[in-house]
Amino acid sequence: MRAHGTHFLQIPGPSPVPPEVLAATSRQVIDHRGPAFGELGRKVLGDIKSVFKTEHDVVIYPSSGTGAWEAALVNCLSPGDRIATFETGHFASLWNRLAGRLGLDPVTIGSNWRAGVDPDVVEDALRKDKNHEIKALCVVHNETSTGSTTRLEEIRKAIDAAGHPALFVVDTISGLCSADLRMDEWGIDVVVAGSQKGLMLPPGLSFNAVGPRALKASESAGLKRSYWDWAEMIAANKTGYFPYTPATNLLYGLSSVLDRLLEEGLDTVFARHERHAEATRRAVQAWGLENLCESPRHYSPVLTTVMMPEGHSADAYRKVVLEKFNMSLGSGLSKVADKVFRIGHLGDINDLTLTGALAGCEMGLELVGVPHQRGGVDVAMSYLRETA
Amino acid sequence: MRAHGTHFLQIPGPSPVPPEVLAATSRQVIDHRGPAFGELGRKVLGDIKSVFKTEHDVVIYPSSGTGAWEAALVNCLSPGDRIATFETGHFASLWNRLAGRLGLDPVTIGSNWRAGVDPDVVEDALRKDKNHEIKALCVVHNETSTGSTTRLEEIRKAIDAAGHPALFVVDTISGLCSADLRMDEWGIDVVVAGSQKGLMLPPGLSFNAVGPRALKASESAGLKRSYWDWAEMIAANKTGYFPYTPATNLLYGLSSVLDRLLEEGLDTVFARHERHAEATRRAVQAWGLENLCESPRHYSPVLTTVMMPEGHSADAYRKVVLEKFNMSLGSGLSKVADKVFRIGHLGDINDLTLTGALAGCEMGLELVGVPHQRGGVDVAMSYLRETA
Amino acid sequence: MRAHGTHFLQIPGPSPVPPEVLAATSRQVIDHRGPAFGELGRKVLGDIKSVFKTEHDVVIYPSSGTGAWEAALVNCLSPGDRIATFETGHFASLWNRLAGRLGLDPVTIGSNWRAGVDPDVVEDALRKDKNHEIKALCVVHNETSTGSTTRLEEIRKAIDAAGHPALFVVDTISGLCSADLRMDEWGIDVVVAGSQKGLMLPPGLSFNAVGPRALKASESAGLKRSYWDWAEMIAANKTGYFPYTPATNLLYGLSSVLDRLLEEGLDTVFARHERHAEATRRAVQAWGLENLCESPRHYSPVLTTVMMPEGHSADAYRKVVLEKFNMSLGSGLSKVADKVFRIGHLGDINDLTLTGALAGCEMGLELVGVPHQRGGVDVAMSYLRETA
Amino acid sequence: MRAHGTHFLQIPGPSPVPPEVLAATSRQVIDHRGPAFGELGRKVLGDIKSVFKTEHDVVIYPSSGTGAWEAALVNCLSPGDRIATFETGHFASLWNRLAGRLGLDPVTIGSNWRAGVDPDVVEDALRKDKNHEIKALCVVHNETSTGSTTRLEEIRKAIDAAGHPALFVVDTISGLCSADLRMDEWGIDVVVAGSQKGLMLPPGLSFNAVGPRALKASESAGLKRSYWDWAEMIAANKTGYFPYTPATNLLYGLSSVLDRLLEEGLDTVFARHERHAEATRRAVQAWGLENLCESPRHYSPVLTTVMMPEGHSADAYRKVVLEKFNMSLGSGLSKVADKVFRIGHLGDINDLTLTGALAGCEMGLELVGVPHQRGGVDVAMSYLRETA
Repeated sequence: MRAHGTHFLQIPGPSPVPPEVLAATSRQVIDHRGPAFGELGRKVLGDIKSVFKTEHDVVIYPSSGTGAWEAALVNCLSPGDRIATFETGHFASLWNRLAGRLGLDPVTIGSNWRAGVDPDVVEDALRKDKNHEIKALCVVHNETSTGSTTRLEEIRKAIDAAGHPALFVVDTISGLCSADLRMDEWGIDVVVAGSQKGLMLPPGLSFNAVGPRALKASESAGLKRSYWDWAEMIAANKTGYFPYTPATNLLYGLSSVLDRLLEEGLDTVFARHERHAEATRRAVQAWGLENLCESPRHYSPVLTTVMMPEGHSADAYRKVVLEKFNMSLGSGLSKVADKVFRIGHLGDINDLTLTGALAGCEMGLELVGVPHQRGGVDVAMSYLRETA
Repeated sequence: MRAHGTHFLQIPGPSPVPPEVLAATSRQVIDHRGPAFGELGRKVLGDIKSVFKTEHDVVIYPSSGTGAWEAALVNCLSPGDRIATFETGHFASLWNRLAGRLGLDPVTIGSNWRAGVDPDVVEDALRKDKNHEIKALCVVHNETSTGSTTRLEEIRKAIDAAGHPALFVVDTISGLCSADLRMDEWGIDVVVAGSQKGLMLPPGLSFNAVGPRALKASESAGLKRSYWDWAEMIAANKTGYFPYTPATNLLYGLSSVLDRLLEEGLDTVFARHERHAEATRRAVQAWGLENLCESPRHYSPVLTTVMMPEGHSADAYRKVVLEKFNMSLGSGLSKVADKVFRIGHLGDINDLTLTGALAGCEMGLELVGVPHQRGGVDVAMSYLRETA
Repeated sequence: MRAHGTHFLQIPGPSPVPPEVLAATSRQVIDHRGPAFGELGRKVLGDIKSVFKTEHDVVIYPSSGTGAWEAALVNCLSPGDRIATFETGHFASLWNRLAGRLGLDPVTIGSNWRAGVDPDVVEDALRKDKNHEIKALCVVHNETSTGSTTRLEEIRKAIDAAGHPALFVVDTISGLCSADLRMDEWGIDVVVAGSQKGLMLPPGLSFNAVGPRALKASESAGLKRSYWDWAEMIAANKTGYFPYTPATNLLYGLSSVLDRLLEEGLDTVFARHERHAEATRRAVQAWGLENLCESPRHYSPVLTTVMMPEGHSADAYRKVVLEKFNMSLGSGLSKVADKVFRIGHLGDINDLTLTGALAGCEMGLELVGVPHQRGGVDVAMSYLRETA
Repeated sequence: MRAHGTHFLQIPGPSPVPPEVLAATSRQVIDHRGPAFGELGRKVLGDIKSVFKTEHDVVIYPSSGTGAWEAALVNCLSPGDRIATFETGHFASLWNRLAGRLGLDPVTIGSNWRAGVDPDVVEDALRKDKNHEIKALCVVHNETSTGSTTRLEEIRKAIDAAGHPALFVVDTISGLCSADLRMDEWGIDVVVAGSQKGLMLPPGLSFNAVGPRALKASESAGLKRSYWDWAEMIAANKTGYFPYTPATNLLYGLSSVLDRLLEEGLDTVFARHERHAEATRRAVQAWGLENLCESPRHYSPVLTTVMMPEGHSADAYRKVVLEKFNMSLGSGLSKVADKVFRIGHLGDINDLTLTGALAGCEMGLELVGVPHQRGGVDVAMSYLRETA
């Protein structure tokens, strides 16, 4: 039996795609070497820079975000290069593992699944690296597995304070267009991003925004690459085309969604996410449940990860919520598997969607017998109403 | 600025159309005289009978429900014929007015905007009509302007008790596929319906289900008609075609939506509506507001009409709800204009949509300063959870 | 087995709907009483005037074109009123029959299935009607069953020459946006039109463009009406709304298609149709087949009706073309049933679609053994190329 | 000004996507870790094997075909490994270049832009490689830049005749579902494919069908990889999921298109392509123009590449065809740039589309003054009609 009504897709991405954007992606394919495509290419390649707050080139791959992780590394590093990562959660850990598979030497300079990256740890690690063996610092902006958002401007300051030349490489796959990111102002060398989160597109596009230091590094970087190679991409992009067949239909969607986001204004977009995040946290607190992120300054505008009380299965809970209320919540990953559930509050949602989602959470808690206080939805409503 | 996220279309119709049905309506048009159309026509003309619970012909018009009102009358009545109507609200009143415009002699045998049709009034009126001047009794099943649902089986009994031969003509424009209706079992002669409510289609199709007594009456009925003429329609329909160009794309949608409704099962569909209606009424009661329908046995499964406390403008309230929460509520019509608002809870919604909608209502009440108790959403959630 | 590739819908309407327009019609339904609808309503009600070349009101019905025929008559005529019609083909004949059903007194002042309306016949008939019993002259602009297009400006002159006050009522259901029509300049009192032909929309909308004399007549016209009543429509339309639920999704499409047509320019649209019509006629001539329309000045820009040589079934031919080449051609209607086939060349087609369609016709002729000359496609290509 | 009517996308891919498939790709995104996704994943991962005619695993990447080229190599080869390629055209050459970039040692064992791979050259090269330094033989099945299709069964025989253990790696990016390919029967170790050609999907998915010898080789292959790694993919696929976010919406489309292709039957699909290719070649011959492929047994069912007479610019010609007839033709690439144009005849086309396309070609030749004979369309029509 199919479920009735709108599915509430409240995972931290892919997020619900606006119907107008879905419609854009379903236009007939065109010749990727013809003039109409060139016009589309130039538009999206130009507009996309705004969402990274950069003047530099943004490379668009037909791939998942995981591909853009790989792309960032293979373009500016050489075999055996040391990179420093900070384990903020499962995805930071996966990125580290990926680096190892590519023949790099990733070191974990710190780990905390309950907060963003600690700038002091970064500064300390870089200061100790007197020979500058660390070639890149890889930081996850918004950790999708935990709901902590690192303050990138602090990391920049830490790098500067240590006077370290490492490339600053940031993954904002789940942060883009939800949490502010200022590539140029914050001196980020490479930004890795994906389409299926704050950009409100289906999955299948990923991005590398490439700063001048990274581009320079890519000229001598020794890791082998072809599909991910920046040079050929950037050269072809100058006229609006791509070196190999692009994912045309997602580019239609990208054009549509960029129009929409830039019309709304990025600051408004970020404020919208912050407000929904705050409403969600208030609900969680009212339930008497704990946010996995225990550092308020790292609270994520994208998702909130809720810890299940001891002895209760988060996955059993999510199953009930899905079956009874037609809502998908995010699962706990890796070491928090079955111990947390994640509420995505990003993308094309509004106050009523969010309230419905929180209601589904609250009803589900009761149904599976998780000890909690009722009234979370009420608290969220009060906040939403007061700030409406 | 466009509103963000999903618009909550909580008026009592048109109701939100499921995406798969919208997709069906956007298939390319085909030759309405070709074999592929014939196949489509035979399918929908066959399947549509189920939703009226009839074995008789159902005529499908490319028109609004208002057209089907007119069709029902012009096919089986003659100039000057008396028809009896009961004013359950604005739409019953409009239908009466329409009858007058067509040259009929409509008499109002009773009026109550706060309940369904009273069978005793019907029986009494028909008994008094000893000469059987009343040729038809026109009853609105679900009054969209008030949220009262008439118990049609009681009306049938009243007619039978009076031993009156009047045709029993029912408007279930907003009731179809939301409130049970058993045309054959309840001896209804003509059922008038539309596409944009419980059928979850865009507006543009309307229906006349035609029983044998009505069909017989149509043979000698003197009102002039052409577009609405049953005879030509029913003759053409036998092979799956229509006498003039049908609204092909809405028929695609009709085919899709019938598959879905019949798969779900009409009883499940009705239960779903009843449950959402009950949750809504509980919320309204918790707010301390009054349901315009004061007869519990006539509560509508389709919508709930809420009376605004004296001195408060329902329209000002609806405006705030629309602007702040991206939700459309139904306005008060005619003599309850600005005095009530209507919450539609029909069609392609589920528990979380409804909770979000009720949250929008509750937040709106506070924002415009309507005296009320909070906690309506909580009460609705409790009910939904307990019956999940 | 489903047919492969694009179906060639070469009937004289419904015509193929542009994908962008289909996409527009599949947007979610909105509240037809809310501000967003008002904006849509005002836009389409304003823009639609351009395609009728009128300053006066255009009424939009949720109905087929057949409904708009009825609407035109019931609004400005009274029971027993005489109207004059000229039988240019099946549809003119149907309109006449419809008038009779509505209680009018339609007289046929001439008949010719192989040409447009003869202005001399009109002038003569009106001159003879010294008592001005003829209240309206009803003329089909483009006769869909035969492919003859009446020169309306000549009819206007004939009426003026006769000094007759009859209302000039024109059906341009299949002519709108394909053949030039200048309502105000040509003194047309009512124009009847539909959505599914040159407007390139799905069927389900129809139009009455209402001139001041017709509007004046409607004030005292005695035919009964409600659904079709102009007065209530025009009053509601002033603010962008409709008196009853409109076919919202088709209005989305109308908005989209009007943007497109007005951007292209109506003169360009008409020239495009003329050019494709000429190419088609040259192909037909090259095949040695006869055009049903034998009056070159009445050749239709919308369709070409081809006479089957004696002893050959047009329907058998059309069946082969459908099954072998996935193309729908129009059938012969009424007295030319099975004797002609109709090639639609209207709407969203271009040179290559048309060439493909003519190729399908030519291949089909050979397959069923109709005596003909090959080379029709070649001749059409030469013309298209020379005028490209 | 936008072009009117259907764009004729007659490049050798991306090919036109059937409207129903575009509609499938525009369904709302779902949770890629939820049960509904698992069902989708299992279905497509199972069904996709049929189109490769294999029992082995098929890995689906969110990437262009170029990514699948890279994937095939990095999974089963080690740095410095020699691979043998045969330059059948631009894409074979690009694949060779890509191998070099990845640190392999690609050698070109032969080159012929006017035919498929010569099995004798293969056998000879492999026989000479007594030390079995060649680890893989990389062959392009259908060379998109030239229109030659290699007979893979002959290459298999050549490898066997040489008794060489090299992996047989085949690119059928533009051949899949257009030209027969029997992975298991022909002993192919890896097949590389893409979504946007015979599969009639938008670009953005690519495939590696992985035979047991290749899988075995991957266990010890030394090239670095992560995104493209088969092992993790195949492990995750067992339950219908993917190790990283898949391109969900293209998988919706894949499910839809596989249903359609398997319902039609692959043999019917191949026959359809062969027939359209033959019609196209006959038209080209009738024009007196030369097919770039001069080996009839290597004629491509996917595209036909036409040589421009000396002194005429193919690109100028294509521009005229695009602007005048709204048709995209493929350009000449690399060393045949501006010297040839390519007519795609694959995917969702039928006899009338093809005839229209050929008419556009023929009219274009005249418009730009290329010396040719008319009548190509006639000849194609004769063939299509005779074989209809």
